[in-house]
Amino acid sequence: MATKPTKADRFSFGLWTIGYNGTDPFGGPTRPELDVVEAVERLNELGAYGLTFHDDDLFAFGSTDAARQKQIDRLKQAMADTGIVVPMVTTNLFSAPVFKDGGFTSNDRDVRRFALRKVIRNLDLAAELGAKTFVMWGGREGSEYDSAKNIGAALERYREAVNLLGDYVTDKGYDIRFAIEPKPNEPRGDILLPTLGHAIAFINTLDRPELVGVNPEVGHEQMAGLNFTAGIAQAIEHGKLYHIDLNGQRGIKYDQDLVFGHGDVMNAFSLVDLLENGGPNGGPAYDGPRHFDYKPSRTEDITGVWDSAAANMANYLMFKERAAAFRADPEVQEALAAAKVAELSQPTLNPGESYDDLIADRSAYEDFGPERYLGGQGFGFVRLQQLAVEHLLGFRA
Amino acid sequence: MATKPTKADRFSFGLWTIGYNGTDPFGGPTRPELDVVEAVERLNELGAYGLTFHDDDLFAFGSTDAARQKQIDRLKQAMADTGIVVPMVTTNLFSAPVFKDGGFTSNDRDVRRFALRKVIRNLDLAAELGAKTFVMWGGREGSEYDSAKNIGAALERYREAVNLLGDYVTDKGYDIRFAIEPKPNEPRGDILLPTLGHAIAFINTLDRPELVGVNPEVGHEQMAGLNFTAGIAQAIEHGKLYHIDLNGQRGIKYDQDLVFGHGDVMNAFSLVDLLENGGPNGGPAYDGPRHFDYKPSRTEDITGVWDSAAANMANYLMFKERAAAFRADPEVQEALAAAKVAELSQPTLNPGESYDDLIADRSAYEDFGPERYLGGQGFGFVRLQQLAVEHLLGFRA
Amino acid sequence: MATKPTKADRFSFGLWTIGYNGTDPFGGPTRPELDVVEAVERLNELGAYGLTFHDDDLFAFGSTDAARQKQIDRLKQAMADTGIVVPMVTTNLFSAPVFKDGGFTSNDRDVRRFALRKVIRNLDLAAELGAKTFVMWGGREGSEYDSAKNIGAALERYREAVNLLGDYVTDKGYDIRFAIEPKPNEPRGDILLPTLGHAIAFINTLDRPELVGVNPEVGHEQMAGLNFTAGIAQAIEHGKLYHIDLNGQRGIKYDQDLVFGHGDVMNAFSLVDLLENGGPNGGPAYDGPRHFDYKPSRTEDITGVWDSAAANMANYLMFKERAAAFRADPEVQEALAAAKVAELSQPTLNPGESYDDLIADRSAYEDFGPERYLGGQGFGFVRLQQLAVEHLLGFRA
Amino acid sequence: MATKPTKADRFSFGLWTIGYNGTDPFGGPTRPELDVVEAVERLNELGAYGLTFHDDDLFAFGSTDAARQKQIDRLKQAMADTGIVVPMVTTNLFSAPVFKDGGFTSNDRDVRRFALRKVIRNLDLAAELGAKTFVMWGGREGSEYDSAKNIGAALERYREAVNLLGDYVTDKGYDIRFAIEPKPNEPRGDILLPTLGHAIAFINTLDRPELVGVNPEVGHEQMAGLNFTAGIAQAIEHGKLYHIDLNGQRGIKYDQDLVFGHGDVMNAFSLVDLLENGGPNGGPAYDGPRHFDYKPSRTEDITGVWDSAAANMANYLMFKERAAAFRADPEVQEALAAAKVAELSQPTLNPGESYDDLIADRSAYEDFGPERYLGGQGFGFVRLQQLAVEHLLGFRA
Repeated sequence: MATKPTKADRFSFGLWTIGYNGTDPFGGPTRPELDVVEAVERLNELGAYGLTFHDDDLFAFGSTDAARQKQIDRLKQAMADTGIVVPMVTTNLFSAPVFKDGGFTSNDRDVRRFALRKVIRNLDLAAELGAKTFVMWGGREGSEYDSAKNIGAALERYREAVNLLGDYVTDKGYDIRFAIEPKPNEPRGDILLPTLGHAIAFINTLDRPELVGVNPEVGHEQMAGLNFTAGIAQAIEHGKLYHIDLNGQRGIKYDQDLVFGHGDVMNAFSLVDLLENGGPNGGPAYDGPRHFDYKPSRTEDITGVWDSAAANMANYLMFKERAAAFRADPEVQEALAAAKVAELSQPTLNPGESYDDLIADRSAYEDFGPERYLGGQGFGFVRLQQLAVEHLLGFRA
Repeated sequence: MATKPTKADRFSFGLWTIGYNGTDPFGGPTRPELDVVEAVERLNELGAYGLTFHDDDLFAFGSTDAARQKQIDRLKQAMADTGIVVPMVTTNLFSAPVFKDGGFTSNDRDVRRFALRKVIRNLDLAAELGAKTFVMWGGREGSEYDSAKNIGAALERYREAVNLLGDYVTDKGYDIRFAIEPKPNEPRGDILLPTLGHAIAFINTLDRPELVGVNPEVGHEQMAGLNFTAGIAQAIEHGKLYHIDLNGQRGIKYDQDLVFGHGDVMNAFSLVDLLENGGPNGGPAYDGPRHFDYKPSRTEDITGVWDSAAANMANYLMFKERAAAFRADPEVQEALAAAKVAELSQPTLNPGESYDDLIADRSAYEDFGPERYLGGQGFGFVRLQQLAVEHLLGFRA
Repeated sequence: MATKPTKADRFSFGLWTIGYNGTDPFGGPTRPELDVVEAVERLNELGAYGLTFHDDDLFAFGSTDAARQKQIDRLKQAMADTGIVVPMVTTNLFSAPVFKDGGFTSNDRDVRRFALRKVIRNLDLAAELGAKTFVMWGGREGSEYDSAKNIGAALERYREAVNLLGDYVTDKGYDIRFAIEPKPNEPRGDILLPTLGHAIAFINTLDRPELVGVNPEVGHEQMAGLNFTAGIAQAIEHGKLYHIDLNGQRGIKYDQDLVFGHGDVMNAFSLVDLLENGGPNGGPAYDGPRHFDYKPSRTEDITGVWDSAAANMANYLMFKERAAAFRADPEVQEALAAAKVAELSQPTLNPGESYDDLIADRSAYEDFGPERYLGGQGFGFVRLQQLAVEHLLGFRA
Repeated sequence: MATKPTKADRFSFGLWTIGYNGTDPFGGPTRPELDVVEAVERLNELGAYGLTFHDDDLFAFGSTDAARQKQIDRLKQAMADTGIVVPMVTTNLFSAPVFKDGGFTSNDRDVRRFALRKVIRNLDLAAELGAKTFVMWGGREGSEYDSAKNIGAALERYREAVNLLGDYVTDKGYDIRFAIEPKPNEPRGDILLPTLGHAIAFINTLDRPELVGVNPEVGHEQMAGLNFTAGIAQAIEHGKLYHIDLNGQRGIKYDQDLVFGHGDVMNAFSLVDLLENGGPNGGPAYDGPRHFDYKPSRTEDITGVWDSAAANMANYLMFKERAAAFRADPEVQEALAAAKVAELSQPTLNPGESYDDLIADRSAYEDFGPERYLGGQGFGFVRLQQLAVEHLLGFRA
């Protein structure tokens, strides 16, 4: 059995995840609405530490101020009763008809202004609830048709929006950083900032790049056929992993939002290994919330909802246990050395070596002898991968 | 540790797999040629029972009769020395320039005739070596451009070829069945008979459909984003799984030919569960060779070649062990029952029930009450999947 | 400008297409409900000849008999007023919660019985309205998790269902054929009968295979990365193209249901060329309805709905015109000959030739000289494709 | 007919493109070697202005200095004879066995040093030949297995290498900029810097970011399912489009390297529209070489090679002509306005408007009335796309 999750594990869930009612492009709800108080209480019992939400998850789009406040108060009371925190808040700029061409980058300027206002209002709420991260998923920022959207202008408008919001939180003294969540497509044919790479490239053009990072989601990167662990490693190397969305996806298709660990098992294992053991001294490479952004399958009733919530956490902890054993295994250490994995951390140049020195080093080129790599100098990567599989499957535990 | 493979496990390897020299679209060989005798001896030591090959693997395209015979004799001696058998043989109709537009379905009729002759000659060799299965992978049967290939005519020519070959083996009294290996693309833009479904549909139009089945390959179906286990289950249900190619693929991209178990781990697990435990009484659903069609990574030297060969078998046996435990677990049995998995084997109609009887059964429709499926009647599929993951990862072993 | 569509073009539309309200996984409706009478009238004005529907499109799931009949009567009156026909009807077994695990292959036997009753009732309506084709899209027949669905049993139940329905229409004397619509995934992780190949393979196991064909959809096959034109050619060769769903898809991703011609333009062109000019004597290879199964983009209001409906037909007719010119161009004919496209229709064997004759023909093998294909014997496929592009783009019109 | 290409069109070709001998993972050469002088002469006749190459294209890996110099001299003479220039040079760090785990980021430090030396030597040659762009495609920089490659360390080593090279060209006074070419996979399972977004994000961490841009390739981005035109627009917006590789790809599969215009036609059209008409005043948004990085199909002989080279240029010019007409059409202008495409270039905030001003603007939020977007405020995107299709197909020419 896997160990039990505790608040120290920093597992958080979106209210919209456990609250997903089953609606999809070909069918309506299969489950009734889930109340936020029940959500908080059950998550607490299961061992989570945090709840996150879009404004529209907590109170319907267009709610009166009173209805909105009532829901906020109920959430606060549940937080107080359980110790559940709200580490992240996000704003829904994609569900209402007004956002049918996006929010920050809608061709319709009035919509863009409305979107900014909606976000600002929700930023105040985020600060009020103590959230440290404000996620921005621009799911409707995009297009189905190339001539319908000026991408250059869209990036300018996105920048204008984020710069304004950056000024706002700075001036207000909010202890909040932004995290852009990339996605390649769905619900738009092509979405702006389709991968974490595109998002970081964009962030570097902002007025306050230090205030903005990424919130990559397992399934979103995998919908582009990209290696999620590799992407996260790049985000970490660039200092931009501000938040993370864990779930499962089975290849390039619609956004499945399966339980973490119910998708690409091998990549989930290497991800947890990176997050937990990939730091400079072998410790965690990321210390933020382990946030699950998944959907309980539409076939399930409320029992399946909570089973699936628990499964996310159980799987993370099982991968963590397997990764620790993998790292501790002397045979793995030997195979890593044979594969020269650590040698890549050694600079290619000698200390103080200039390009002239390198050019003068005949052993580097003239006398190097590249022909010995034909039939020799094997890297042993397959053996290393096999050790990883055997650990993953518990055959070396 | 996984159990050691033995000949009773019926593991076989293509000579071209362990013999892969590392050539790919962007680089030449990284390993020297592997001799067939060494291949047979090493496979035998590792626990395999069979070797398979294309004609051109054993003796180069265009070999003299003497050179050809010498290689055949060397293989036979190695077989005699080790007990290794040749359960399957196949013909290369894709490497030589003459096959640049395919073999059986080249637009060039002279090429088609040449291809038939090459296959007939190799069928004789297959029979001589005791092979029971003759695989046909039509990797060059296809096109990059829609107007360059009349698909209807291509299917006619493919049929003409297979019918002729069926007559040939029947008349000769060869105990050989054919297995068509589907692939969606690569090296052609689109390949004829792209999935096992297309292949079985085609087989049903042959003169001797009973003589022809499919040889699906894990990676080939997954290159179309299809669920390999589900496809194999359909092939078995239609009585058409005559052979199988095991390997690993990480999503929709070029043909990776990774070690079995180094691709989609979850689907590999369910595949072994199906093959070993999916029969009518819970036993094997397939009793043919477990054939590995993979490529040792180009980064490896000969040590990595044999490590990777061993890894294929080790992984199969680990999945088999996990699958047995999964099936034996009472909690799994209970979850399967709750998910009504076995109820699907029960006919929808009562014994002897006509459609008139069904129409007269008010409980089936008028009084059925579909509304209770909203918020209720959950299937518990996520719980079942979680049990599968926990078994796969060895947390319930 | 393209020519105007007329009823002779046999263009038909699903009521759910023009009636799509914009709901998707991340947002609710952006358009109000479209009334069936308005739909019929507008389609008639635009030049369509047919309307198709699911039962639940015309009258909501769970409607009273009176409400149901009222809608049927309104449709009939609109048909009489306009001359619009109903060439195809289909049943919704995927939207209501009761079908959350499918209809014919739900693990829940009671659901399967309910599904059969719903289809039988709708078959009567199809016959009453004169529909000649009954489409079955099993969008919920599938699974997200391999152990949750016994695929072999699912195929048995699917067969049981279709056999029963085949008996029913035969006994009733309905002039109706069935057409199975394949799809690889969405809304299920993996769907039963994922491609037209799998569907035809299955159809061959039915009691009345002649009564059942396929209804392939452009986007569905392309979601598996398959060449739609090639698939349709195979379906035609096997005599199984009973109906067709035209739309647009931009690669492997969620089901986009774009306007026909707004997806893969080149493949749409070759498809129309095949349908219109691919018959044995150069005429149509398919004489059924040209049925559009698309969704007007969620960004559009009702004006965009009708613009998009018109665009489907305009594009078909433009491709048809370009394809006719392509076929008529002497340079194209010359390039086709150089590429030996027609030579593929010539049998590989001479009339009456046996395999012994072929083996005796030294020119086929011993004296063939395959080495001249290195550096020679080019097929000229790129030139042919370039001519196709120039015709498609109207540079040779 | 399309207009004839001239040197003013700035079309260039890789020597490895027209020189591709047909080798692929399943077959050897179908064409003999192409001499560089013939390449230059024929390209000149066809209307190209430039030739590009990898070192190993011009002289085999491991050539003696004399053999190397002879080839350089022959190229120079051909350039002088024809006026063909060499606008770009690149180094092959992927074909030889020594690079089996990459060049700049091989786990093997000795290989990394050898790679740097090989590049430096080739930089000198690039400068000597007057190349202004030095492309770096790191096709072997990557991994098949997550634990075999420390991605963070790989990025550090890549940075170390590019920083060194940047110092080198700066110190030498070379008028050369670097362009990183991203690719998601093939020949490695996952490649470092898989998309143009990842590459630009990385470039921003370099010592001399102004010296480094990207060289995106149509097929490479499309292998990740990404919209190439949208990606190019982002690269332009970030000032990072230093070079471009034009070719064709038919969806997510192996790297096809088809002729430009033989892949996704619609996206190729919008790309040319962007490059030619997407600048701030409607002129070109990119003024560098239009470089074709394609492979003549393996089915072709030398005639097909030159036909395919010509086809690339013809298609570009046809798209350019269609795009000009599209932009000039008053109906298109009207549809663009209706779709508010230009409105996206208008800042969301009023001149001088602060967030306080925005918050005080009741028309932006409190009185905005988002409900009118349900059933109204359609964007007319489908109509606009249909106009694009009609222009593309020459029905409005």
